[in-house]
Amino acid sequence: MRIAVDAMGGDHAPREIVRGALQAVAEYRVEVILVGDEKRVLPELGDRAASGPVRVVHAPEVIEMRDHPAVAVRRKKNSSIVKATQLVKEGEADAVVSAGSTGASMASALLSLGRIKGIDRPAIAVVLPGGNGYTLLLDIGANVDCKPHNLFQFGMMGHLYAKKILGVANPKVGLLSNGEEETKGNEVTLAAFPLLQKAGINFIGNVEGRDIFQGVADVLVCDGFVGNIVLKAGEGLAEALFKIMKEEIAKSIMAKIGIVMAGAALKGFQRQIEYTEYGGAPLLGVNGVSVICHGRSTAKAIKNAIRVAKESVDNYLVDAIRDSITIAEKKEVDCANAQGSG
Amino acid sequence: MRIAVDAMGGDHAPREIVRGALQAVAEYRVEVILVGDEKRVLPELGDRAASGPVRVVHAPEVIEMRDHPAVAVRRKKNSSIVKATQLVKEGEADAVVSAGSTGASMASALLSLGRIKGIDRPAIAVVLPGGNGYTLLLDIGANVDCKPHNLFQFGMMGHLYAKKILGVANPKVGLLSNGEEETKGNEVTLAAFPLLQKAGINFIGNVEGRDIFQGVADVLVCDGFVGNIVLKAGEGLAEALFKIMKEEIAKSIMAKIGIVMAGAALKGFQRQIEYTEYGGAPLLGVNGVSVICHGRSTAKAIKNAIRVAKESVDNYLVDAIRDSITIAEKKEVDCANAQGSG
Repeated sequence: MRIAVDAMGGDHAPREIVRGALQAVAEYRVEVILVGDEKRVLPELGDRAASGPVRVVHAPEVIEMRDHPAVAVRRKKNSSIVKATQLVKEGEADAVVSAGSTGASMASALLSLGRIKGIDRPAIAVVLPGGNGYTLLLDIGANVDCKPHNLFQFGMMGHLYAKKILGVANPKVGLLSNGEEETKGNEVTLAAFPLLQKAGINFIGNVEGRDIFQGVADVLVCDGFVGNIVLKAGEGLAEALFKIMKEEIAKSIMAKIGIVMAGAALKGFQRQIEYTEYGGAPLLGVNGVSVICHGRSTAKAIKNAIRVAKESVDNYLVDAIRDSITIAEKKEVDCANAQGSG
Repeated sequence: MRIAVDAMGGDHAPREIVRGALQAVAEYRVEVILVGDEKRVLPELGDRAASGPVRVVHAPEVIEMRDHPAVAVRRKKNSSIVKATQLVKEGEADAVVSAGSTGASMASALLSLGRIKGIDRPAIAVVLPGGNGYTLLLDIGANVDCKPHNLFQFGMMGHLYAKKILGVANPKVGLLSNGEEETKGNEVTLAAFPLLQKAGINFIGNVEGRDIFQGVADVLVCDGFVGNIVLKAGEGLAEALFKIMKEEIAKSIMAKIGIVMAGAALKGFQRQIEYTEYGGAPLLGVNGVSVICHGRSTAKAIKNAIRVAKESVDNYLVDAIRDSITIAEKKEVDCANAQGSG
């Protein structure tokens, strides 16, 4: 198993990326190809540079956050993300992991790997903690305007990811909406509802905003505009709550002593809500395994993303999506034919 | 100043509603008309029943949560929300406050009071805490599918509410989107952006999800589908965080002692995030003052909602919205004429 890692992407690149990659090599017995500027990557590797499971591929160009992703990936062929994705295309690597620009990761994947046949729009999924489990939310930003059919396909892909990678036997798939009743929703979700109902998956209907973090659904489907706002609002609220807590604590010496005593509990709390640590966001629907990480990823986040990439390859996720879409399309054709002859 | 209060609406009606109304009478020197089932409201009032500033209007019917709002308000003329709103229409009350079904409040207001001339869609606004101030988010559920022109009008109404009721001199109005750049957004927000830019208000452009709770904008505009999900997701996340914190604390005796010592700080923290306590959600764009409260409203929430209703009347909010829309429409006509003759 060889994972191509974009060594230059993210706020803490290349140091944290390289550290995370080395941890993954030790823990998951994968080979890692670090793609980036040799002059910056090699010093981070130190005496591990010549080690068997770690290899460096030189990529001197950088895609900046201000670059237009689709343009940049065409022009900057020697950027780390483009080269890393190209390694997957060429069969030199089995998956790609990056904490750089989400847009560039996506554009590279679409350009080099392409979409799985039958998938209209790939989606970015993220695992949120909640209740006593996790919820896979998708799409979180790949597609701002979606058609009902896109949401249907997100539900199918999310179902497969939850089953194959998160290990949920019969994943509950919900549709994010403004109310639980079937009559609630906007034009697009109202039209997506019956498609998901007929999808042959465990569709539990509409799920409200307040249930996102309660583990009500294993998979939660929405368009990328809503998903992006919900995800970032959650991050922002968690940060704001910590700030308020700190300010309240600062007001009293008793509180300060109390908080020191409750330290382990509060650290556990903080760890649980750091959902950016939960292994990156898979890009589902492209013809290969691509995992996108938060720009602020630490070594631990990168290590976990590499684990997710490895598990996606081990469990033939791309093949499973291809097969299920083929079957779903065939069903639709059969239905249309049956209706036509009926 | 006479406020009609729906005594039967909400999970804790009529007890908490009556208590909140009495507190408001004492604090804000308003008269309150409690509208509801006499048999249930009068016992809650006790010896205050004959008091000058408190009056009861009998309304025996109840609109259930499962009733279709628009149908129910037409059929159940003797329901508390319909009668309370009707009092405003007839000039018997200056404003209406309800913690019952949001849909029924809105349907009653639209049916009895109607829209302000020029306003296409009324919006429900809510005040969220964040940073060192507050952010008014609208719409949070009145309109799931919006046109760019609706978002523009939400911005205008939010601007006026922030200025007149929240006391912000030059409110910063933002458009909730999936990125800060002007190029980010879905079809509707991309088209609303230039309209808000030309509105003659302090439009600060797109605001990301992570900045909702940071006080970046005084007013934040979105469609009711997104607003509803964001609001409920925030509530759900805050609840989930408290649950995690409790579980972590339960694991250790040291943590328990610590938390007791930090008690006041944590209570302050909890109080700050209870944004449902912040005075209800005004329904903006209808021809009268209507304030909608959370179904779980306590006496304090009802009291605060009555204060908001009073301030809206005191500050001629409805007139201000009518005037500003008339001016905005006139500008548009002038522009069209100028372009036509140019």
